[in-house]
Amino acid sequence: MEVLSSNKSFGGEQLVIRHAAKATGCDMTFALFLPPGEGPFPVVWYLSGLTCSHANVMEKGEYRRVAAELGVAVVCPDTSPRGEAIAGFDPSDWQMGQGAGFYVDATQEPFAANYQMYSYVTAELPQLLFAEYPLDAQRQAVFGHSMGGHGALVCALRNPDRYRSCSAFAPIVQPSTADWSKRALGEYLGADESAWRAYDSVALIEDGARFPELLVDQGEADGFLNDGLRPWLLADACKEAGIDLTLRMQPGYDHSYFFISSFMEDHLRWHAERLG
Amino acid sequence: MEVLSSNKSFGGEQLVIRHAAKATGCDMTFALFLPPGEGPFPVVWYLSGLTCSHANVMEKGEYRRVAAELGVAVVCPDTSPRGEAIAGFDPSDWQMGQGAGFYVDATQEPFAANYQMYSYVTAELPQLLFAEYPLDAQRQAVFGHSMGGHGALVCALRNPDRYRSCSAFAPIVQPSTADWSKRALGEYLGADESAWRAYDSVALIEDGARFPELLVDQGEADGFLNDGLRPWLLADACKEAGIDLTLRMQPGYDHSYFFISSFMEDHLRWHAERLG
Repeated sequence: MEVLSSNKSFGGEQLVIRHAAKATGCDMTFALFLPPGEGPFPVVWYLSGLTCSHANVMEKGEYRRVAAELGVAVVCPDTSPRGEAIAGFDPSDWQMGQGAGFYVDATQEPFAANYQMYSYVTAELPQLLFAEYPLDAQRQAVFGHSMGGHGALVCALRNPDRYRSCSAFAPIVQPSTADWSKRALGEYLGADESAWRAYDSVALIEDGARFPELLVDQGEADGFLNDGLRPWLLADACKEAGIDLTLRMQPGYDHSYFFISSFMEDHLRWHAERLG
Repeated sequence: MEVLSSNKSFGGEQLVIRHAAKATGCDMTFALFLPPGEGPFPVVWYLSGLTCSHANVMEKGEYRRVAAELGVAVVCPDTSPRGEAIAGFDPSDWQMGQGAGFYVDATQEPFAANYQMYSYVTAELPQLLFAEYPLDAQRQAVFGHSMGGHGALVCALRNPDRYRSCSAFAPIVQPSTADWSKRALGEYLGADESAWRAYDSVALIEDGARFPELLVDQGEADGFLNDGLRPWLLADACKEAGIDLTLRMQPGYDHSYFFISSFMEDHLRWHAERLG
């Protein structure tokens, strides 16, 4: 692991770290915020949306003040493998390939060799961090935005014993049927849509996955609300399954970091209460 | 004026606006945050540092939460005229020309036609905004970072009746003698250094300018501390002049927005108390 930068902020330390990742077969860069103190700190994982790297939420998400106060560490991974030599390097295509890993383990060529983001964020990166930094593996939470809200919900529903809490900003709740994610799931996971269900929150709940409670904020002025996001599909599935979903529709808010930062404090406090 | 974007954030409205500016002879873009409510709102001017546009502090400064709570508007102007046709267009030179207006009214060719940033931020842009938005011209404050901290101090010292309060993050307090600003002052204002004193906080105080009280935060780990910034020169001048300077040296903090955002709340509360 190579520390690319370290900046004191709100009494804690904002790190940017690069390491050679096995799951993705390339160098990966992530952001780690350590609050003041000695630790071990509970960890909140933040998964970012399409086109983002670790840097977007680090710069615009406004999480450090509250994380420092609450004494929680925040990890912000990248959203895909990176590099011109890696499949999916097409900066003009924001819905597929680099910046659009969708937190799946790809099974299809040419993506299977590198697009193992589910394993990266749930296994490789946690193991690395818990070995190197004063973090408490028994106290983990996960949240994210848009594609990363999808990722957070999938991680929590598939690992309810690992994450004590889960929330999302404007998540893609049913990527199997959303226009902007169907193509990616097909190219990563193949034409057999039954394989997609392991990476679809609504389908996971239909298939029996459970998580005690979820918090979702969704802007009513979000241009992707009706086509890509559709939080009512999650609400219906949670109601049917008896999952305690708090879905807050926020009037006037869009899909941007101006929205995310406005409710970042609420989400971090939600997680900190459940992390103990 | 053309509104380029409007995003709801923390209950208020973050606007980005472009207009044809007379002082700079080109289109200028600035950020305006309006807190919730009807106004008229007191106004805090934030002047940015070298290489920045309006966008850097808008994205990384973390001012909206507190500004919304306090009911103050925040205006973030650009740092220079812009355009390939305008003198000083050299992206490789970060100390001179575009992104480096130093908040002076240039008198020298080829800069005099466009580099009138002092007039732009103290006259043209305020007049425009007070005519168009629910802002209270009787309640103005000014602050900024680095080159913009210099700008804020100069604006306040030269207009003590207009601004009710002034603060700065890591300001360039004596640009006439700092390596990274001497060249710019020479090119904008000419070889006669007496003309530079109207844009040099320490010189202004030596020459009799006064402001009741000032707040300055300075990171002790700031790589520019000893060569470019040297806040002790301001402390000496203020002590001599009887100006009430609160200079806080912040251990471990550098020159970045990670530093600015950490103390943004303190500065906004300082201004709000004095704006009434």
